[in-house]
Amino acid sequence: MAYIEQHSAGLSAPVKVGLIGSGWMGAFHAESIARRVPGAVLAAIADPNVESAQALAQSLGTAKVTADAADILADPEIDAVVIASPARFHSALITQAAAAGKHVFCEKPAGQGLDELDAALAAVEKAGVHFQIGFNRRYADDFQAAKKDLAAGIAGQPQLLRSLTRDPGNGSIPNAARVPAWTVFLETLIHDFDTLNWFNEGAEPVEVYAVADALVEPKLRDQGFLDTAVVTIRYSNGAIAVAEANFSALYGYDIRGEVFGSKGMVQAGRATETAARRYTAEGLSADTPRLNVELFRQAYTDELADFAATVRAQRDGTPPPSGAFTLTPGAADARRALAMALACIESVKQGGPVAVAAAPVALRDDARAGV
Amino acid sequence: MAYIEQHSAGLSAPVKVGLIGSGWMGAFHAESIARRVPGAVLAAIADPNVESAQALAQSLGTAKVTADAADILADPEIDAVVIASPARFHSALITQAAAAGKHVFCEKPAGQGLDELDAALAAVEKAGVHFQIGFNRRYADDFQAAKKDLAAGIAGQPQLLRSLTRDPGNGSIPNAARVPAWTVFLETLIHDFDTLNWFNEGAEPVEVYAVADALVEPKLRDQGFLDTAVVTIRYSNGAIAVAEANFSALYGYDIRGEVFGSKGMVQAGRATETAARRYTAEGLSADTPRLNVELFRQAYTDELADFAATVRAQRDGTPPPSGAFTLTPGAADARRALAMALACIESVKQGGPVAVAAAPVALRDDARAGV
Amino acid sequence: MAYIEQHSAGLSAPVKVGLIGSGWMGAFHAESIARRVPGAVLAAIADPNVESAQALAQSLGTAKVTADAADILADPEIDAVVIASPARFHSALITQAAAAGKHVFCEKPAGQGLDELDAALAAVEKAGVHFQIGFNRRYADDFQAAKKDLAAGIAGQPQLLRSLTRDPGNGSIPNAARVPAWTVFLETLIHDFDTLNWFNEGAEPVEVYAVADALVEPKLRDQGFLDTAVVTIRYSNGAIAVAEANFSALYGYDIRGEVFGSKGMVQAGRATETAARRYTAEGLSADTPRLNVELFRQAYTDELADFAATVRAQRDGTPPPSGAFTLTPGAADARRALAMALACIESVKQGGPVAVAAAPVALRDDARAGV
Amino acid sequence: MAYIEQHSAGLSAPVKVGLIGSGWMGAFHAESIARRVPGAVLAAIADPNVESAQALAQSLGTAKVTADAADILADPEIDAVVIASPARFHSALITQAAAAGKHVFCEKPAGQGLDELDAALAAVEKAGVHFQIGFNRRYADDFQAAKKDLAAGIAGQPQLLRSLTRDPGNGSIPNAARVPAWTVFLETLIHDFDTLNWFNEGAEPVEVYAVADALVEPKLRDQGFLDTAVVTIRYSNGAIAVAEANFSALYGYDIRGEVFGSKGMVQAGRATETAARRYTAEGLSADTPRLNVELFRQAYTDELADFAATVRAQRDGTPPPSGAFTLTPGAADARRALAMALACIESVKQGGPVAVAAAPVALRDDARAGV
Repeated sequence: MAYIEQHSAGLSAPVKVGLIGSGWMGAFHAESIARRVPGAVLAAIADPNVESAQALAQSLGTAKVTADAADILADPEIDAVVIASPARFHSALITQAAAAGKHVFCEKPAGQGLDELDAALAAVEKAGVHFQIGFNRRYADDFQAAKKDLAAGIAGQPQLLRSLTRDPGNGSIPNAARVPAWTVFLETLIHDFDTLNWFNEGAEPVEVYAVADALVEPKLRDQGFLDTAVVTIRYSNGAIAVAEANFSALYGYDIRGEVFGSKGMVQAGRATETAARRYTAEGLSADTPRLNVELFRQAYTDELADFAATVRAQRDGTPPPSGAFTLTPGAADARRALAMALACIESVKQGGPVAVAAAPVALRDDARAGV
Repeated sequence: MAYIEQHSAGLSAPVKVGLIGSGWMGAFHAESIARRVPGAVLAAIADPNVESAQALAQSLGTAKVTADAADILADPEIDAVVIASPARFHSALITQAAAAGKHVFCEKPAGQGLDELDAALAAVEKAGVHFQIGFNRRYADDFQAAKKDLAAGIAGQPQLLRSLTRDPGNGSIPNAARVPAWTVFLETLIHDFDTLNWFNEGAEPVEVYAVADALVEPKLRDQGFLDTAVVTIRYSNGAIAVAEANFSALYGYDIRGEVFGSKGMVQAGRATETAARRYTAEGLSADTPRLNVELFRQAYTDELADFAATVRAQRDGTPPPSGAFTLTPGAADARRALAMALACIESVKQGGPVAVAAAPVALRDDARAGV
Repeated sequence: MAYIEQHSAGLSAPVKVGLIGSGWMGAFHAESIARRVPGAVLAAIADPNVESAQALAQSLGTAKVTADAADILADPEIDAVVIASPARFHSALITQAAAAGKHVFCEKPAGQGLDELDAALAAVEKAGVHFQIGFNRRYADDFQAAKKDLAAGIAGQPQLLRSLTRDPGNGSIPNAARVPAWTVFLETLIHDFDTLNWFNEGAEPVEVYAVADALVEPKLRDQGFLDTAVVTIRYSNGAIAVAEANFSALYGYDIRGEVFGSKGMVQAGRATETAARRYTAEGLSADTPRLNVELFRQAYTDELADFAATVRAQRDGTPPPSGAFTLTPGAADARRALAMALACIESVKQGGPVAVAAAPVALRDDARAGV
Repeated sequence: MAYIEQHSAGLSAPVKVGLIGSGWMGAFHAESIARRVPGAVLAAIADPNVESAQALAQSLGTAKVTADAADILADPEIDAVVIASPARFHSALITQAAAAGKHVFCEKPAGQGLDELDAALAAVEKAGVHFQIGFNRRYADDFQAAKKDLAAGIAGQPQLLRSLTRDPGNGSIPNAARVPAWTVFLETLIHDFDTLNWFNEGAEPVEVYAVADALVEPKLRDQGFLDTAVVTIRYSNGAIAVAEANFSALYGYDIRGEVFGSKGMVQAGRATETAARRYTAEGLSADTPRLNVELFRQAYTDELADFAATVRAQRDGTPPPSGAFTLTPGAADARRALAMALACIESVKQGGPVAVAAAPVALRDDARAGV
């Protein structure tokens, strides 16, 4: 006997992804695409720090490296880009990528101001490319389970919501984390805002009241770097939400979400690293999650897998993947969360509640158009 | 052989307690004193609704009943009173009881305004009687365990705190619960304020921002009855706290506390009625606590046992019971929590943050005097 | 105004209880009766160690003490006895108490041999007195919740059961605990046997296979003292159960029960002392239950409250307290569990499975008569 | 600017894997290798049911298919095989693959008799190829965390162990699962035996006592198919273990492990599908794990990743991956677990305890040689 050779002509070509930015998060996304995301290949890497890009490319067997993102945007072989540069370049890169006809996955925040973001999202709209923002928590198994229950009406009409982020730390703030000054709102709580918006789907955030302080490193207060914040949010459906963040949880990475409503409550958030437990003379103990890329490993893979599958379907003209509830965070979600973060900064400056800027009509998502 | 008769001459006489108010809470306290609190006897019951008092007295074997609390205050056999009348009478009753030389246990709130409360507490101070306020959560085993950890520095310097109360309900507000209009702050969140103050001992509440609405029964909004509230509190040590309440949790009685600080986090709050679990085709399930007198049965007994033991020690000139941390909620605690509730009402009216009124110097407790 | 004097003529007199045995467990029961059990008074204490009895009596304000249990049995004022003497006297004391017309609460085991126990239970039957055995776990809130679910058919037909006891320790066996040699079966696992029988109500234990060893203190092996045991039990309905015990859990007191059946599983057992949790640089931790009288404080109170209420009803000719499922452990339960313990001892000696001795027809309880 | 082309010459070639058996488990392994295991490619598939192999190959883009496993064994491009055929062919295939110089990953059990397995493992030893058995539970995150704690001495000297498997079902046994008759020991409990051996590393299983019955489908009892079993195991270090299995848990897939020892206890086993919780009028609820390939998805990937990495290191002459404790289940583990399963079958037949057959000296692993 001998082998019967197979021909897999029917299989669609994988999505060719260009990575822009090979820093810590970019490198992790690169590894996900190269090793864990079915149907995608990492085709090229751009970073002004070309040594960083080269090292990453070699470790993953990626052929093409460049210091200039424009090379990737001009490359006809590239289907889509993953933007993981510093946030101040995000809106401009989205605009350029869309103009070049590339599908876009962008790390959060999609911009640092509403004008630049609205321009970028208008370019996406005009080009008709697929846009996804890196709100990875939506892909965590427990947050998805909670969302599924909410979509099924388990909690009824939402009345009280909570989302919190506590980053791991040891009581100090690393230098790199201190930029920009408003990190706690623009980079951290923006995740919680999206979670709350997603959990309270159909309602719009109307007003925020934010309190923030430098409690982890009080000496940074004068530099305007705030490491702790609590935000109260009023929604158009009356629901009241609280988002909370702190940059130094000695026990690790603590991410939780909770929705209480007219029929009950759903909660997401993993308190321990695994299901293992130990009992000793000191009592019960268990390990806590320590690293976002461990806690959300599956979520980081799945958000890119969703992106790749959607891009592939759009490219091939096949039906997109679908589900029982809104999963993919898109343009309107990116815009809504950024508007909240910016309103929070204003609230801290003013010491009182501030209205959340409404999105241009074109950017409102369908689900909320009817509200 | 035959019995050797024992003489228990050395045992101190039990504390004779007079109950003022035989409503739902008063009746429960009466039963605790009569059946579950060692070293105390229920000697008399006063209630303008004398039939209610008589029925309670007969079921518990209590001899003396009166429609007029003054009879109890004038009775030389009575050591102490438990005030469980409607809240609008609390401050006046405290004042009269102290003047009559009776030790006082008063249900929360100790008053409805700071002037009447300050007068009452001044009377207590002048008379030298013992005063305890009914913040029973301090006696719940999990809240005590959390407090013990906090006193031991497990969480380090507090940065973020949370306390919440969700009363059981079925989506509507009973008529009796609608008085007074500001119940959510004066009767409910006042518990959470005390929990937060106790957990953040040594710091003073400085400012509150309160949001409240009628989400359970929107039609009561026009009557000014608000059933849902979220309060942000700034403390003198920089810590930021959130207190949250809702009057209709379909899953029962949900009481939680959480302190996050420079070294970690402690949490209190019981999610299930017992440790029993069931696994069926529908998945995992368990019963939730349904009734405050079930969830806090031990706490309600223990707060009265603490009161009785302290009164007995003061009466007998023996050392009071002591512990590793501040347990008994007293005059300063009652005053501090009420000031917060009143500031919240003002905050809702104004739509912005409001300062918490400082207590008269005489009412500040020792632990904080040095802060 | 003045007091209206109440006459509680309608209240039935409390049950007068005589305690036999003032050791550790007896003293705890005495305190429960004197302070925590409604409708019962501790009227007399008997112990050959009369100083022990006197000290206990004085601390609780009990008048009558004797060295001779016969004084209590001859006392016409005594309604009922609580037997907390060493186990070797249990059956004889039950027999004598029943003959004297006293209702009997007896600590486990009710005897150390089937002949003496059958004689004692026949005396109980003949005298028509109420008999209860100290299987307190039935009164623990989580075990009751599990039983309630089982009675409702939540788990379906039982197939696999588990009950375990791990006593707190520090790696050694106290001298007092080493008597009798077969303590692990007669004093400890007898609780688990009752739990399994109760959970698998309607079926009879048919055969046991026991493995036991001295793993905590291997040097006691030669003295025949075994501190660790695992028992496999076959039931008449096909269900297979495992009971497990060890005398030195460094993390405290670990008591669990589990029933798996054709429709699901129910579990009982409390892993932590309270619901409080702490999160530190070392991860999650919580205190574990350390003392049986803490873990089962409510259960110890409630079993005596059940006893007192039943005796009172029987004495007064009123209907006994009732519930949705069999709660009170009685004569047949005491007998069934002892037969299992004795079969286990035989199994260890023989190194193979051993049949469980069936009870005399008169001792089989109603629920199983129809099986 | 333009791309800088990268040359990844330094990267070692991936391991080329041939799959033998494209049934349910084989197909899942194929998908893991093709999509989720870094450093491995699925090069060929063999199955007598060639249509099944072809369908699988096409869906994964695998080129070579054959009805005859010999083609794979003769293919010089193939580095290693994954054996997922029916168990009755396992030992023979191991023998042939080793003789052909292929590294071997074999699904459990590695054989159905000790003679055939000893011959196969001798062939492995002689050929010097790497051998791994599919005890995937070792790779589950919670089981690894527990093992890590055990290796660190957290539980001290093991005294009591427990491992259980409850397969999901709906109260009946699918036809396919009824072969072989002793499935409960040979296919299911063999996992638990390995878990217990691994957790109690350094000790040998000495004797087993097994009870088994047809409780899920009593009508299969006469055909000799038993769906429920409980096994008591004595180890050479005195520890007593219990393994338990049932084929129809209506609540899903329930896998747990527990070790109690002189210093404490460690537990593994995941009770819920995710960390999400819901609270409704019915109380607390959560979803339970339903499918082994969901519960153990990461474990199934990681066992093959370990295999691929080890094979690659052996092929390339680089150091093998190493860790703090024994992870990879090898020849001695496969043999030890099978000997226990066979002893259980004998125990059920005899109705008493049976000794576990010791392995040939050559097959004892290093760690235990010194015991």
